Amino acid sequence: MKIIVLKFGGTSVGSIQRIKKVSKIIKSYSKKYRVIVLSSAMSGTTNKLINMSKKISENFPDNEYDTLVSAGEQISCSLLAGHLAAIGLNSRSWMAWQIPIITEGKHKYSRIKYINKSKILKFLKSGGIPIIAGFQGVDKYLNITTIGRGGSDSSAIMVAKFFKADRCIIYTDVEGVYTTDPNKLNSVKKIKNISYEEMLEMASLGSKVMQPDSIQDARLNRINIEVKSSFVNKSGTLITKRKNIINNKIITGISSTDNDAKVTLLGVKDRPGIAASIFKPLSQNSINVDMVVQNISADGKQTDLTFTIKSNDLNKTKKIIYKNENIVFKKLIFDKNVSKVSIIGVGMITTPGVTFRMFQALARKNINIQVISTSEIKISVLIKSKNASKAVKCLHKEFKLDK
Amino acid sequence: MKIIVLKFGGTSVGSIQRIKKVSKIIKSYSKKYRVIVLSSAMSGTTNKLINMSKKISENFPDNEYDTLVSAGEQISCSLLAGHLAAIGLNSRSWMAWQIPIITEGKHKYSRIKYINKSKILKFLKSGGIPIIAGFQGVDKYLNITTIGRGGSDSSAIMVAKFFKADRCIIYTDVEGVYTTDPNKLNSVKKIKNISYEEMLEMASLGSKVMQPDSIQDARLNRINIEVKSSFVNKSGTLITKRKNIINNKIITGISSTDNDAKVTLLGVKDRPGIAASIFKPLSQNSINVDMVVQNISADGKQTDLTFTIKSNDLNKTKKIIYKNENIVFKKLIFDKNVSKVSIIGVGMITTPGVTFRMFQALARKNINIQVISTSEIKISVLIKSKNASKAVKCLHKEFKLDK
Repeated sequence: MKIIVLKFGGTSVGSIQRIKKVSKIIKSYSKKYRVIVLSSAMSGTTNKLINMSKKISENFPDNEYDTLVSAGEQISCSLLAGHLAAIGLNSRSWMAWQIPIITEGKHKYSRIKYINKSKILKFLKSGGIPIIAGFQGVDKYLNITTIGRGGSDSSAIMVAKFFKADRCIIYTDVEGVYTTDPNKLNSVKKIKNISYEEMLEMASLGSKVMQPDSIQDARLNRINIEVKSSFVNKSGTLITKRKNIINNKIITGISSTDNDAKVTLLGVKDRPGIAASIFKPLSQNSINVDMVVQNISADGKQTDLTFTIKSNDLNKTKKIIYKNENIVFKKLIFDKNVSKVSIIGVGMITTPGVTFRMFQALARKNINIQVISTSEIKISVLIKSKNASKAVKCLHKEFKLDK
Repeated sequence: MKIIVLKFGGTSVGSIQRIKKVSKIIKSYSKKYRVIVLSSAMSGTTNKLINMSKKISENFPDNEYDTLVSAGEQISCSLLAGHLAAIGLNSRSWMAWQIPIITEGKHKYSRIKYINKSKILKFLKSGGIPIIAGFQGVDKYLNITTIGRGGSDSSAIMVAKFFKADRCIIYTDVEGVYTTDPNKLNSVKKIKNISYEEMLEMASLGSKVMQPDSIQDARLNRINIEVKSSFVNKSGTLITKRKNIINNKIITGISSTDNDAKVTLLGVKDRPGIAASIFKPLSQNSINVDMVVQNISADGKQTDLTFTIKSNDLNKTKKIIYKNENIVFKKLIFDKNVSKVSIIGVGMITTPGVTFRMFQALARKNINIQVISTSEIKISVLIKSKNASKAVKCLHKEFKLDK
């Protein structure tokens, strides 16, 4: 029998009722596959624990943070395994240290390095359904660690990798990946198949289905992921390698951001290292810089530099730039109401004229493009925030995503 | 430096504020001792987790129960260690499996068999303050177990034993052990010193300070226990071996029970095994039989048998007796409003006339004694419940416990 990994997110196991519901899903898969389950903490638990740690101290130590929050998965997994056992299945919970799942790296931001398969394989062979705590690990000294970015998704992908699973199904509270944010457009369609690369662009650009790190892990290890809902019985979105996808659409999806701010420094001295001198202090202050555009300087002496940040970082950014004597410029101008709208699709590699079609569609709606940035499978433009939803709508139609 | 074990109960770590409070207590001890801390789960947590397991299933498996509820101590210990570290002390949490604390016996009712001291000793020598999760253990297959009766108290006593601690201080929400229940009598006094044996009689008779099993563990291993409050800074009660105690009182304390029922079987056939045939089915149905009195049969053919149970077991008990054909008797009579009042004290061994004084004091108050039962350091009488508080009051005065 093939191995399948089922991962349930926090809302999927968010109540006793929900735990009973997902038990049925697990049971039905157990008839055809050897099933390995990964579970997140019940929704709300992790935040509650984090809040307690914050009330204890602003300097709550990272090692105790990991011990504290991993209790959440201990609770959800024992409840889930307990229910499966109570309805007659051979199931038990496995904490990361019981397997063990060995991590490396710092507390709070560990990565899974190695999974000892022997105990789980033995349990699977006896017909058992292991319920493995996601998000957790242990380092080589048996300290409890947690997987920072990606969390339980990352655990599921790595378990799928080590156990050579046929597929990894990520159960969540959305039905899959959509052509654009369903909260912003009514005519969205669920994407049936999407490549890792497209999904990476979608995820980092605002789709909140899966963390980019987990998708990257899946891409590197060629794990087929299906994202689907544990609330309704419908097929979801398959995330797989590019060549598995037959798609007649040029564009797979559209993403847009809110709350971006654009900062332009006019008359920046054009010398090597100038960009670094601006972005280093921003990075040190945890300000995430997104798009960066620098024009060629006309006279070879000074240039204009534009970049985007989150709007709520704007004041902090201005302060840093004004205070830093190394940053020489003539004038700082900003706009705190811009949005980045991106079209994503592997189809654009082989299809000429996509850029033109995008710009033309926006022009027809009288939407002014301020900044342009492109990659192999993505074109992003910066526009006024008030035009964002109009832009998404017209591009969605232009590239026939509603069909 | 000597080792001291501090154990904090659920109410002592019941909130962030409380955790900060007990951190101060720990800090002050750490100046004079090598401190090992044991902590219970925050009050309310364990019950919340147990309720979730009950909602999952009436047949929630015992192994998952242990994994589930032990998450409570994981939370409290990481918060406490996190706070100590944040205020600059060298402290970290230790789950049972990280030490490990090895248990034997069934899930939910495990007993600590062995504690591997090496890691904790190394940490203590580095000036560290280990915060050990009470109530938890692991069996030899690395399954999570919990210590049934006694719970975290039992963990603390066993840690004190293995590390040869100078003393084990049990911090709780009462100031110590009293001459009788403070809720029932105003003139109670806190007992300064009490022997293990007296404490065992006090505990099993209604004082809820410590579980009898933990006291028994302490007695067997000669661990000096101090019971005191984490809420007020006052000396508590020292529980120690008999010869350490200088006490000029004959009686150390008085206990009384509520909600007892007395059952008498008249005309029971007087043959070997008759008592067993009655008590076996009761025990099989988890009905706890307390006092048992059987009179010598006058004619050698039949006798009367009296025993006490908890009042809410009365209906079940009657059913079992009527249904069981092996139990032959003429008539069953019962009284569901009786109380057992006991006087406890090692002093009575060497002091004649204690029994007489007790009976005389009760007679003066017109309190009728229904059943009498005695041990080396205890005399118990069964009386009507309505007389219980009057009895406790007059005995408390008779034996000068209010002085």
